[in-house]
Amino acid sequence: MRAIDVIQKKRDGNELEPDELREFVLAYSRDEVPDYQVSAFLMAVYFRGLSSAETVVLTQAMVDSGGTIDLSSLGRSAVDKHSTGGVGDKTSIALGPVVAACGVPFAKMSGRGLGHTGGTLDKLEAIPGFRIALGEDEFVSQVAGVGVAIVSQTPDLVPADARLYALRDVTATVDQNGLIAASIMSKKIAAGASAILLDVKVGTGAFMRTVDDARALAEAMIDLGARAGRQVKCEITDMAQPLGRAVGNGLEIREVVETLQGSGPPDLVELVMTSAKHLLAMSDLGVDEAEAEDRARAALASGAAYAAYEEWVVAQGGNPDPSVLPSAPILREVVADQTGYIADLDAMAIGVATVRLGAGRVHKQDVIDHGTGIVCHKKRGDAVDSGAVLADVHARTADAADETAAAVRAAYRLTDDAPEPSPLVLEFLS
Amino acid sequence: MRAIDVIQKKRDGNELEPDELREFVLAYSRDEVPDYQVSAFLMAVYFRGLSSAETVVLTQAMVDSGGTIDLSSLGRSAVDKHSTGGVGDKTSIALGPVVAACGVPFAKMSGRGLGHTGGTLDKLEAIPGFRIALGEDEFVSQVAGVGVAIVSQTPDLVPADARLYALRDVTATVDQNGLIAASIMSKKIAAGASAILLDVKVGTGAFMRTVDDARALAEAMIDLGARAGRQVKCEITDMAQPLGRAVGNGLEIREVVETLQGSGPPDLVELVMTSAKHLLAMSDLGVDEAEAEDRARAALASGAAYAAYEEWVVAQGGNPDPSVLPSAPILREVVADQTGYIADLDAMAIGVATVRLGAGRVHKQDVIDHGTGIVCHKKRGDAVDSGAVLADVHARTADAADETAAAVRAAYRLTDDAPEPSPLVLEFLS
Repeated sequence: MRAIDVIQKKRDGNELEPDELREFVLAYSRDEVPDYQVSAFLMAVYFRGLSSAETVVLTQAMVDSGGTIDLSSLGRSAVDKHSTGGVGDKTSIALGPVVAACGVPFAKMSGRGLGHTGGTLDKLEAIPGFRIALGEDEFVSQVAGVGVAIVSQTPDLVPADARLYALRDVTATVDQNGLIAASIMSKKIAAGASAILLDVKVGTGAFMRTVDDARALAEAMIDLGARAGRQVKCEITDMAQPLGRAVGNGLEIREVVETLQGSGPPDLVELVMTSAKHLLAMSDLGVDEAEAEDRARAALASGAAYAAYEEWVVAQGGNPDPSVLPSAPILREVVADQTGYIADLDAMAIGVATVRLGAGRVHKQDVIDHGTGIVCHKKRGDAVDSGAVLADVHARTADAADETAAAVRAAYRLTDDAPEPSPLVLEFLS
Repeated sequence: MRAIDVIQKKRDGNELEPDELREFVLAYSRDEVPDYQVSAFLMAVYFRGLSSAETVVLTQAMVDSGGTIDLSSLGRSAVDKHSTGGVGDKTSIALGPVVAACGVPFAKMSGRGLGHTGGTLDKLEAIPGFRIALGEDEFVSQVAGVGVAIVSQTPDLVPADARLYALRDVTATVDQNGLIAASIMSKKIAAGASAILLDVKVGTGAFMRTVDDARALAEAMIDLGARAGRQVKCEITDMAQPLGRAVGNGLEIREVVETLQGSGPPDLVELVMTSAKHLLAMSDLGVDEAEAEDRARAALASGAAYAAYEEWVVAQGGNPDPSVLPSAPILREVVADQTGYIADLDAMAIGVATVRLGAGRVHKQDVIDHGTGIVCHKKRGDAVDSGAVLADVHARTADAADETAAAVRAAYRLTDDAPEPSPLVLEFLS
């Protein structure tokens, strides 16, 4: 394998041999191919794409670049869930306890947020004391004992992906479905779960802008999972507006608690229940989707899911009491200046405004403010009177509050007539 | 200017602003943009191309990345010539003395060979004692005093091009006309000549495989020269077979001497005379092409051109006596195994075989054997009898001689009927 031959072959639109692509990736992860050749390769992939076969080889090579998590000591199948990222997406944090309360082990390794999308780990770190870095043994034994663990990826898992992703991030080669699918699925495969539910988000607040793009990515990931012996199913869900009401780390954890206590926002409750239904039906419980949904709703209604949340948070060192969550000193209301309906609430604009409040990152090394954020009380389709509160801004300073309030107001588009209802779950692929 | 924005803009097919492209190139040359971002950019350029305006900006930024040669002390216009590279192309080494003998200063900075094409500097270094590295003052004063200098590029000339070229070479981004044009013309503009003749070679032994590609490159370079206030004209010439008979450094210098002494191979003589005609007509002599050709032929016939060669070689420290040129101990004849006509003599195959003899480089750091090479006595269109000598192989070892002889034999294609004659100079653009 000569790196320049691999680059040139891809540049010219020819399919790479499995061995040469595999060796290219592994040699890169051994520091035997320099970044500048790999970035040229990635740009060639951006233009030429990856075949299904190439995507499979890339995924497996990334898995093989490091260790894998062995969940066999559980004696049964664990489930995992991944979202491609959106604004206000705290689904996994509520879903894990629901699934665990139904007796299915939920084992998830997660990531941090960058840009307008938040990260599950950043949200969990808003919980005082919560430890996200567990060793592999600790991770597995917590899944066995408590039934749920969400942790940061251990450093020896898919190191090639970490390096490739960092390179893609600075070379404008992130937006390529084969590379995205391989990146996500290599991590999911290495993390050990047997059944994996994916949530590919579509809309202004997501990486995927069209349902067609999302479907292509979903199909690629389902195929990759199947070839690695994993059961993978995929929801395609709307990310034109934020999910739930809260956007910002501490605020989102509070909304998770409300959801598990039975008073969550309807769209978040719907997505948590739908995802729980799909995961339970994929699990080793041997139940169909109708039975799965009944069990998930019962776990929520009985308080079992919230109890599982408390037990899980304590197990990872956190204080589950929502009153100890960080908050921000300035509260600024954003009010409607006309009577009408919410026609749009721009997820991207809300995500960017949240980052400006310090609740997200522009650069990887940025420190997160876990207390700030935005609560969108009104969502698409809601009727509002002039003067009604659309959203609350939780800010660290008055200036930041003012600036953000203006941005939030601009993110709302009001019309005289009610907009057409639009579904949250757009498709389900299995 | 953020490097990732420049990459993404080019990736998406948008035209770069002059300032951002210029700053990207200059920041790279100041080590403020890493190789891995530039290589991704170069691959995006490979797919998206460069507009005329972008090529101009790139060229000027490369010129401005270093110093330029000031030839104003000559008190008149100097001429320069560049070939895109071929097999057996020793034209410049014969052309310089012809032009100088006609009273026109010839000031050329040249490069080394890589792969199947030889480099003018490598050929000159076959001359015992010849110094290719002259300082700027020495270069200018030699052009003023002797009328001709061919030297290596001074290190502070277009450093951005040197870095970009090295990166392109290992990232499969060499073959892009805008990048090629900017690379060539930035060096020619920085080297100071007022009138520049380009020879874009086409055929199996050249980078350009079609006349259309060659014409597009030629037009881009003529445009770049005009915008920099230089007079640029371009020959498009055949490189389907080697130029002249000799391929290999010492052998090619010997052929230059033969040419200047009046017994050169017809195709080389034709190209030297045509090029001299074009250069003299572009010079400050104020002569038309007919007069220019007369003067060039007279300089050759009178021995003035050979005298200029001797004076030039001595000025650069070399011994012009051809009997002191290096040679190789093994001579192997390649003979025809049938009677017929030479239909093809594959320039690429001869170039590659010459590299195998040690006369060229596979890697930049390879050391050249100045004694080895191939002399192709028979060229396209020649009639041969079975058993006639097609070519001589000059090798360091018997094994190398045998291997090369087989490769040379395979490079000749013989047919029963004479092939159609094909011209050497295909087009002339001005």
